[in-house]
Amino acid sequence: MGRTSDARERILDSSRRLLRTRGYTALGVAQICDDAGVKKGSFYHFFDSKQALTIETVDEHWAEERRGLEAVLAGAGGPVERLHALVECLVGTQRADHSESGAMYGCLYGNLALELSGQEPEVRGRLAKVFDDQVAMVARLIAEAQEEELIGRGTSAQTLARSMVAQIEGTVLLARVRNDPTLLDEAWPSARRLLAVA
Amino acid sequence: MGRTSDARERILDSSRRLLRTRGYTALGVAQICDDAGVKKGSFYHFFDSKQALTIETVDEHWAEERRGLEAVLAGAGGPVERLHALVECLVGTQRADHSESGAMYGCLYGNLALELSGQEPEVRGRLAKVFDDQVAMVARLIAEAQEEELIGRGTSAQTLARSMVAQIEGTVLLARVRNDPTLLDEAWPSARRLLAVA
Repeated sequence: MGRTSDARERILDSSRRLLRTRGYTALGVAQICDDAGVKKGSFYHFFDSKQALTIETVDEHWAEERRGLEAVLAGAGGPVERLHALVECLVGTQRADHSESGAMYGCLYGNLALELSGQEPEVRGRLAKVFDDQVAMVARLIAEAQEEELIGRGTSAQTLARSMVAQIEGTVLLARVRNDPTLLDEAWPSARRLLAVA
Repeated sequence: MGRTSDARERILDSSRRLLRTRGYTALGVAQICDDAGVKKGSFYHFFDSKQALTIETVDEHWAEERRGLEAVLAGAGGPVERLHALVECLVGTQRADHSESGAMYGCLYGNLALELSGQEPEVRGRLAKVFDDQVAMVARLIAEAQEEELIGRGTSAQTLARSMVAQIEGTVLLARVRNDPTLLDEAWPSARRLLAVA
């Protein structure tokens, strides 16, 4: 029992890492099993297919990441300080990648979103939900900042939040294509300008 | 001779469309040949590999698109009007995709950038060049707008231009993941806020 549930976790760990570094299409069940050190029979005991594993990987990765971001949201400091901390959290994975391996692997959700379009509508639906959740979290902080008149009310918190999430995804994309982590330093100044922080 | 050069063009046309709609990894030389109606021997007469074809596809696609964007840059209207036209040009492909096929296929360069990271450094180098060119074009217009005091000089035209290109890539990503072309309508208002257009 202990061993069985351990296999499931190992498969999910391998999937998370390999999906981000290699992409969806390039990845096969055999490679995931190999990386996780489990047999194919064990894989299919837990997951119906690579697609089903991908959906669970996205869900579990986001559940974990979300808890981290919620902690930042509920942290100390005014809403603008917490927005700043949130941006640093969202680009932090890329900095960590680069210092560990010399490369950036992008955002799991953004990578899958651009790799899969018409294909795999169920996976895309999950990614849409992750981005909706991110936008909602950012919008809560922006609304708080608007209450305190630190950000103008001319544009809705929801629209500003979506622009900010788009800005972060685009910044990660450009940093990754140049493999230059210093470009991530622009994420927060760009967000400040976008929100016209007072 | 006429027929031979026609085959090369057909391969490049198929490659451009299939790379954008299916991605790099999922695409094989056989499928490109099939789509273009050429034999494998003919393919390898013109291109050494799928990688070599991808590099030429990016180069040719960008050369063509660049001419279109240069025409917008040199067009009528003040620098802010031309920036607006440039943004609409950059998201226009997604709108066209959606009205033709009901789906959006994203930006060829953005898709490849997120699909290929450590793999295919030569392709990535080409993509970096495309984004550098786009940033340089946008920066020229922003500098013009700064000259005319329509945009503040607090941040360099280069930095603002990179934020704007990132914003557009991120907006396309979010519109695509929801398959909702109305999200593209936010590209210009977001850019205006980012640039703090007077």
